Amino acid sequence: MPSEPVERRRLLRVREQEVREEDDWVVVEEPLEIRVGGEPLAVLMRTPGDDIDLAAGFALTEGVVHRGTDLGTIRHCDNAAAGPGGTGGNVVEIGLVPGVVFDRDGLRRHLIASAACGICGRATLDALADRAGPNHSPMRVPRSLVASLPERLAKAQGVFRRTGALHAAALFDTEGRALAVREDVGRHNAVDKVIGRAILEGLDLASTILVVSGRTSFEILQKAAVASVPIVCAVSGPTTLAIDTARAFNITLVNFVRPGGMNVASCPERLTGDEPPLV
Amino acid sequence: MPSEPVERRRLLRVREQEVREEDDWVVVEEPLEIRVGGEPLAVLMRTPGDDIDLAAGFALTEGVVHRGTDLGTIRHCDNAAAGPGGTGGNVVEIGLVPGVVFDRDGLRRHLIASAACGICGRATLDALADRAGPNHSPMRVPRSLVASLPERLAKAQGVFRRTGALHAAALFDTEGRALAVREDVGRHNAVDKVIGRAILEGLDLASTILVVSGRTSFEILQKAAVASVPIVCAVSGPTTLAIDTARAFNITLVNFVRPGGMNVASCPERLTGDEPPLV
Repeated sequence: MPSEPVERRRLLRVREQEVREEDDWVVVEEPLEIRVGGEPLAVLMRTPGDDIDLAAGFALTEGVVHRGTDLGTIRHCDNAAAGPGGTGGNVVEIGLVPGVVFDRDGLRRHLIASAACGICGRATLDALADRAGPNHSPMRVPRSLVASLPERLAKAQGVFRRTGALHAAALFDTEGRALAVREDVGRHNAVDKVIGRAILEGLDLASTILVVSGRTSFEILQKAAVASVPIVCAVSGPTTLAIDTARAFNITLVNFVRPGGMNVASCPERLTGDEPPLV
Repeated sequence: MPSEPVERRRLLRVREQEVREEDDWVVVEEPLEIRVGGEPLAVLMRTPGDDIDLAAGFALTEGVVHRGTDLGTIRHCDNAAAGPGGTGGNVVEIGLVPGVVFDRDGLRRHLIASAACGICGRATLDALADRAGPNHSPMRVPRSLVASLPERLAKAQGVFRRTGALHAAALFDTEGRALAVREDVGRHNAVDKVIGRAILEGLDLASTILVVSGRTSFEILQKAAVASVPIVCAVSGPTTLAIDTARAFNITLVNFVRPGGMNVASCPERLTGDEPPLV
């Protein structure tokens, strides 16, 4: 039972010397507690809605499970208390299929990685290599299709852009069809939501393109590496560690994607030129 | 020894049908491990530079210490290994003044807050109330000064806007003078850096204005509440929980600040109208 992702709030709107009270749409932010085996694992600040997708994606990209088929039932644990005055379904319990063991201590070690005065970008990539390998997807897509993806994302987003405060993420197939589009106040959450939706539907992430509305930092590339997504596209710029991660794990990273162009930081062989027009 | 916050990376630049190899400036992202008493406390992904400020601000806003004067020496713990080939000073050790006790377990409880199927925005604010009280600052500033702050922030930022991938935060005094301006790939880090700089200089945060380049989510307001900053201004929008936090802790929250106007979500009494022009 997703709550509305936007709510009205009373604000003072100041325009030059004029001050007026007005209602405005504000994007909702609420904590979500994720549990495994009845025990709290993490609390995320997220935009309510698609909580099951978020929990599934988080479970995969943060190393609770190694594949979508390890996931059993994922459900809100307090349906009874939802609605006005209740806690609105802010706790999700992840069930694992019989035989799958959750290494809680191993995950804790990964979340608080440490290397006696030797922490650096290189060590971060080495730690990630325990959980992800180089992407071998032979996928190829035309550059012209990549150039069109931010516009397709914006169209698919639709209604909630009115608040101007949401990050968006989407998975596309090689024909440019949107497989999943999700929004959140947290950029990582939007990515986990689309990855979660994909694994719950049994989609093959190795033939998808991840598109994000903002920038690409290490954590976005880390999630793509673990989820085996071969191409990541963004409207804004990358960080150094995002580029280094893309190169280390053989992911095609494309930034500043516009109708007229883009910057390709790694693995350009997955992007093909367009056929010359037939005369 | 802060590293350069931007580095060159070789990229493929695609413009229409033309593909060219070029160097581009990319913002640096590296892990920083923060230690207290020799034990790892957290690993942040941050832009190198102002690491001591970041550690000091993080220590205050995340509850390691309750005031700036609790902090002893903060230093990089591997100066020897810095520079090319070294780990570049990615570990910072926070020293506490004699007599100050760090409640590591209490902090862990706060970081992984949980309330048996009762987690919600209200519970989040209740938990924050253990660490912060309502802001009683009697500070007053003219709305016209607030309207000018994003422009002042952009001017003070200067050199590093070339990458387009950095968040900025600044503290201003009531005359509109920038007391500290910092940039980071992480929005929370930029805020911790300016708050850290302020407490290391012994500034009174209760007479400052925090300005951020992006949006205001719960965590920004949480940090302002703990640090006793009375006014928070942002170029973009708020979330519901940011507004609720501002109201609960008596913080003036101003969003969508432009030369011609702004939206005030809470405590507008700190913003004064401008004197009518003398004729």
